[in-house]
Amino acid sequence: MFDFTATYTDQYELTMGQAYFLAGRKDESAVFDYFFRKNPFNGGYTIFAGLPDLLAVLENFRFDREDLDFLKAQSFHPDYLTYLEHFRFSGTIYAPLEGDLVFPTRPVLRVEGNLIETQLIETVLLNILNFQSLIATKASRMRYVAKDGVLIDFGLRRAQGLGGYYASRAAVIGGFDATSNARAARDYNLKPSGTMAHSYVQSHESEIEAFRSFAAARPDDCVLLVDTYNTLKSGMPNAITVAKEMEKKGRRLKGIRLDSGDLAYLAKKSRAMLDEAGLHYVKIAASNQLDEHVIRSLMAQGAPIGVFGVGTSLVTGQPDAALDGVYKLAQAGGRPVIKLSETVSKITLPDKKQVWRAINGEGLFLGADAVGLEEEKHIAVMHHPFVPHQSFAIEPHETEPLLHPVMAEGKIVHNPPSLAQTVQYCRERLERLPAEYKRFENPHIYKVGISGRLKELRDRLISEHKSQ
Amino acid sequence: MFDFTATYTDQYELTMGQAYFLAGRKDESAVFDYFFRKNPFNGGYTIFAGLPDLLAVLENFRFDREDLDFLKAQSFHPDYLTYLEHFRFSGTIYAPLEGDLVFPTRPVLRVEGNLIETQLIETVLLNILNFQSLIATKASRMRYVAKDGVLIDFGLRRAQGLGGYYASRAAVIGGFDATSNARAARDYNLKPSGTMAHSYVQSHESEIEAFRSFAAARPDDCVLLVDTYNTLKSGMPNAITVAKEMEKKGRRLKGIRLDSGDLAYLAKKSRAMLDEAGLHYVKIAASNQLDEHVIRSLMAQGAPIGVFGVGTSLVTGQPDAALDGVYKLAQAGGRPVIKLSETVSKITLPDKKQVWRAINGEGLFLGADAVGLEEEKHIAVMHHPFVPHQSFAIEPHETEPLLHPVMAEGKIVHNPPSLAQTVQYCRERLERLPAEYKRFENPHIYKVGISGRLKELRDRLISEHKSQ
Repeated sequence: MFDFTATYTDQYELTMGQAYFLAGRKDESAVFDYFFRKNPFNGGYTIFAGLPDLLAVLENFRFDREDLDFLKAQSFHPDYLTYLEHFRFSGTIYAPLEGDLVFPTRPVLRVEGNLIETQLIETVLLNILNFQSLIATKASRMRYVAKDGVLIDFGLRRAQGLGGYYASRAAVIGGFDATSNARAARDYNLKPSGTMAHSYVQSHESEIEAFRSFAAARPDDCVLLVDTYNTLKSGMPNAITVAKEMEKKGRRLKGIRLDSGDLAYLAKKSRAMLDEAGLHYVKIAASNQLDEHVIRSLMAQGAPIGVFGVGTSLVTGQPDAALDGVYKLAQAGGRPVIKLSETVSKITLPDKKQVWRAINGEGLFLGADAVGLEEEKHIAVMHHPFVPHQSFAIEPHETEPLLHPVMAEGKIVHNPPSLAQTVQYCRERLERLPAEYKRFENPHIYKVGISGRLKELRDRLISEHKSQ
Repeated sequence: MFDFTATYTDQYELTMGQAYFLAGRKDESAVFDYFFRKNPFNGGYTIFAGLPDLLAVLENFRFDREDLDFLKAQSFHPDYLTYLEHFRFSGTIYAPLEGDLVFPTRPVLRVEGNLIETQLIETVLLNILNFQSLIATKASRMRYVAKDGVLIDFGLRRAQGLGGYYASRAAVIGGFDATSNARAARDYNLKPSGTMAHSYVQSHESEIEAFRSFAAARPDDCVLLVDTYNTLKSGMPNAITVAKEMEKKGRRLKGIRLDSGDLAYLAKKSRAMLDEAGLHYVKIAASNQLDEHVIRSLMAQGAPIGVFGVGTSLVTGQPDAALDGVYKLAQAGGRPVIKLSETVSKITLPDKKQVWRAINGEGLFLGADAVGLEEEKHIAVMHHPFVPHQSFAIEPHETEPLLHPVMAEGKIVHNPPSLAQTVQYCRERLERLPAEYKRFENPHIYKVGISGRLKELRDRLISEHKSQ
């Protein structure tokens, strides 16, 4: 693991912290919201992921000797350095369960604490949640189109450095079955997966020798890569020969893998060759620049592919690269605060808030979340956040609060689900999301409304600033 | 730092390793080439970066107890596990100097060693070099258009998890001046940079109070963020008031920062307001979704911006997300090998090779690299790699070899340059690259040719495989 020390932050968190400290405001309270403005991939939802990693980092977030020396060399104030030496995150965090579906322009997570600690953790919080949520969401889109196909993460080599470590975990939350990333598999208890590369074939005098030696080394888990020289003229005939030899020893070739060329065409031709040889049980795996659109196309063409290996597009979240999550101050010193913008949708929501998800009679998500003040125990009517005089009665529907306490005074307080439970929970939440929010093209917009009291507070703060 | 153990690899490296081991081939020699097929960003060059991090990892690459337990649980063979327990990378690596310019479809780096060790390091090598090279290249494009402007990396919050750590270093190689990433600054001795966020302004009763308190806390390095409420009506007038107050105390406001809206328009208006107040020395910094194209546009509009803060597009290398570097076997057991492909440009170059860069009379790069066999001490004529009967005489020009020994028998053997030296070297190499390779639109293609002997060897291997 990486040793996350408290300099895993943006420099301005440290400079602002000093300004607060020197102004005697170190114990003043603050409340921040984490939220994002746009679903990635022009999709209709985002999967919330990364919480256990974040909480583990925060429980141990402190400045070590190297950190303090680094800050001292920059002439930070000695009293502030002494304060940082004893710094621990002692704040409180409310969050959804990992694997839940979250949507733009409403709070995803809330942090409460003192001004300095809530500020210092901003960067690491954004860094972890933005990325894991992006990748879990990307993975879920591939799961959606791959149906029951096996999905394997092949991304580490093209991952953004150490980013690949978290990506493999997040991919599983979104629906992947296994990963080539052995280290992530080790640490997160994921299923490791991997067979052979072209180099293995090349390192033998001939392709058939390579296949024979691999079958000997892995009689029970043998997948042969058939495109090193020529898929249909060499790789497939050799694989079939070896499969037949394995049968004589009472073994079964598990699969063949295609890694270049027209995957739909080659899969059909390969399937026909296998079937003609009576090898109906041999699966076809495919890799090479796959993403959700290519997988969907392969499925639509009826390509007989049972296993998809996905690399770059999965672990980097191409084409989006980042979830645009931000962390905005909602309350300072007990006073609700706001950030204005010429773009009305970028005006923040003040104060401590809860988010309520409305559920319809069939248990499906209704298509709208309501945001209210924390103390509102239920919301009967939600108002359009920006358009006046538009409202929607949610009273007859069931609602459930999304933000739960997960950390209190710097300690993890919830009973963290296992990864398998998170995977299951994410699957269930996706099942409750109607299909129109899951389609790739122009998905339906999952609405947000605000309570009357929150609307009133926000409008009052806007007026006050405008009149200043 | 992350504890890179030897399971930081793809699972198939481990399964192939076992197959080699069980076949008694553990001491057989192998040579791999690292290369890529396409410059990122549709650009004309790539900056080679990441070498010191890679070499440091390889010197200490070993299986720890957790790794071995993880592999044992997967029923790897006991003899192989014993071998892995004592595994050290003892190979030899030839590489360019970090910061050099490299181009597609020719070897960038060569690894020699035994079959198992050269295979096991594939993933970590690709993971580190692909990413740092991508980001250094991205950064250099921003440097190219920002001219003498200050460039600061603001990316950590939107970075791909831990990927941000390496990104900040790579950005400096490509020409960035400083980073907001305090931890990377600490570990890599980069210049940290950061002032205030919107939350700082919001946490005060009024914007002017926030500015005053920040100026008091940072009298010598005060940059005020002016867009929390309204840039031209509130932020700028307040900043000017505070700047004047600072002058009375003998201090100077360093700058103001714009983080939203039309940056060109707001920069011009803000400059005029500052100048009118006699504050010619106050610099304007800008941030918010910048990339090389936006910076170029701002420069072309004459926007008076002196400092650019760049986040997501820099540290994630948007829109490309990954350099497509690969690692291909060129020799096994002393025998040159090849990988075929229906796409002729994807056929690999066999055997141990050196790359020669041709230099013209003015010391500029001539626009072509020649690839020859390692034992060829000079190349007089280079041949088009795929088109028959096309050749180019490089004899009259100077040439320099690009691949130098950097690791021998698992130990770093070169005297690694400091980061400052690498930055300087990269700048010099870019200066020697003619402008037509640096433009963004349809850059000139930096050619590659192969020696007569290499061509002959490759063509012979192709024929042999076709006749099998």
